[in-house]
Amino acid sequence: MTQVGVNGYGTIGKRVADAVTAQPDMELVGVAKTRPNFEAEAAARKGYPLYAAVPERADRFGEAGLDLAGEVEDLVDAADVVVDCTPSGVGAENRSLYRDHDTPAVFQGGEDADVAEVSFNARANYAEAVGADSARVVSCNTTGLSRILAPLEEAYGVGKARVTLVRRGGDPGQTGRGPIDDILPDPVTIPSHHGPDVNTVFPDLDIDTLGMKVPATLMHTHSVNVTLESEADAAAVRELFADESRLFLIPESADIDGSGKLKEFANDAGRPRGDLWENCIWAESITVEGRDLYLFQAIHQESDVVPENVDAVRALTGGADAAESRATTEDAMGVGIDY
Amino acid sequence: MTQVGVNGYGTIGKRVADAVTAQPDMELVGVAKTRPNFEAEAAARKGYPLYAAVPERADRFGEAGLDLAGEVEDLVDAADVVVDCTPSGVGAENRSLYRDHDTPAVFQGGEDADVAEVSFNARANYAEAVGADSARVVSCNTTGLSRILAPLEEAYGVGKARVTLVRRGGDPGQTGRGPIDDILPDPVTIPSHHGPDVNTVFPDLDIDTLGMKVPATLMHTHSVNVTLESEADAAAVRELFADESRLFLIPESADIDGSGKLKEFANDAGRPRGDLWENCIWAESITVEGRDLYLFQAIHQESDVVPENVDAVRALTGGADAAESRATTEDAMGVGIDY
Repeated sequence: MTQVGVNGYGTIGKRVADAVTAQPDMELVGVAKTRPNFEAEAAARKGYPLYAAVPERADRFGEAGLDLAGEVEDLVDAADVVVDCTPSGVGAENRSLYRDHDTPAVFQGGEDADVAEVSFNARANYAEAVGADSARVVSCNTTGLSRILAPLEEAYGVGKARVTLVRRGGDPGQTGRGPIDDILPDPVTIPSHHGPDVNTVFPDLDIDTLGMKVPATLMHTHSVNVTLESEADAAAVRELFADESRLFLIPESADIDGSGKLKEFANDAGRPRGDLWENCIWAESITVEGRDLYLFQAIHQESDVVPENVDAVRALTGGADAAESRATTEDAMGVGIDY
Repeated sequence: MTQVGVNGYGTIGKRVADAVTAQPDMELVGVAKTRPNFEAEAAARKGYPLYAAVPERADRFGEAGLDLAGEVEDLVDAADVVVDCTPSGVGAENRSLYRDHDTPAVFQGGEDADVAEVSFNARANYAEAVGADSARVVSCNTTGLSRILAPLEEAYGVGKARVTLVRRGGDPGQTGRGPIDDILPDPVTIPSHHGPDVNTVFPDLDIDTLGMKVPATLMHTHSVNVTLESEADAAAVRELFADESRLFLIPESADIDGSGKLKEFANDAGRPRGDLWENCIWAESITVEGRDLYLFQAIHQESDVVPENVDAVRALTGGADAAESRATTEDAMGVGIDY
């Protein structure tokens, strides 16, 4: 059993902790948290051992009635692999901590690519992380793009990808973020960082991305164009995608017009936190015009990288190959929507 | 002096009435309105003769203390040209009224293309409407696209255009519209109607468009990709656009990040109703990658077609050629931003 520590118990960390707990070949050592807020309280109620991420603030946990199992160093020491789910930039600061303890580490996509040996997507380049000391799970948007580009590249070849990412302004809990009643080019310069980030997974792929930010919180939505290198038609692309367990093809009959209904669907299905680990692609939107493929997909920024984090842990330990790991992860979590 | 009647005094009609009034070669006969609401009150205060658009409801105007100059038939009869600014679909119903009175008519882009002899954009195909009995000013978004595609086609040739239109859910006054906190593919099928609509102005242009709808009210924002047929660089495209009076290149130094600040800018400049008649293109966003041009532009859905309506009136009467008409319209209205 691989002993896994989770450093940082926010949006991603709490989901990774649950997903690790569900795996048959992993055990959660515990989670490190900076403050004894509602999330720490929830972790304690689940029985997850709590570690103080900032030793100087350890006393606050006791004051809040929460027992600590130790400090973050103890967690790193006890773990075979640490998944760093701290805010962007903090992961890079934690790198020396993991190195000092010889603990392999998984970082998140908010970090620069050089934080880890390899930028990772379970569908695209799992093998590159096998046996590495560290891997960086690319961001929610880059994960969403990698999952469609990998099968398209294999089946047709990708001549060029052009993607407009219409991003949610903030997560539902990020009450200080905007915009309100506006549509912001973000960044106004082109390309956005997403294209170069895709290139950390697919070094040779020609991709231009444009980013925007709008007053929504639930999911990102991508307007995707991929110029294919060989003939395709929409039906064949739909079949290709239907074979991918982390792609959900929204059927026309579902009457799902946006991310609100997608989340409602996930909640009705009993998904934890209403999570959508899969890319949500509108089947009707898949269109081929000459060599140009178009589609719309919604990406749940809070959860789509969670299965990839589990797979990254398995890759670092060398415990399984890509197909085995993905299948184990998906079985344990319940990833995959058969509509 | 061309006598102009405006049928429909809502978002577009009130702006067209003001713009016509400002022209040196036009006189506003009056405006037809269905109901004596705040807009009718404002028209009366400006001294615009009011006509009852629905004769059966004419009494309501008197009850609201508003004098009528007559019914819509009287307006059509007295006018040399009618600009139909009624809601989508009503224009088509009004067509026989204008025909019965032999009054040339300008329709709006909400109507199907077959409502008029020609679909019109003042920059792209003014000459086609000269001497016609009717013209349809294409929608705000198609107008915004036509204004950039015309100079690009002339200077470089357009191989293919691919545009994602991130549309405001409704105008500020349309309080019953959504979405709230969502990003909707709209329509989910591809292409959206905008591509075929651009083809009513540029019949041979290869264009695919994708539409989305978001919780914003102020302006639409386009993510534009144009594959050019000859070499270009970003600086040359900026210069090309700088010569176009209906394109506003937002300079980086302006610190304008979205439509909220654009409207604030227009209000500070004393623009009536904070209108932005020009395409607002972020200069920094203009990027050329190989033969692919990219840019972001914001389109003020309430006002960008207003100068085009004035030009359409002049085209139908044959009173000026395209360059003369555009210059007259712009001088009279104050179109063009020299930043």
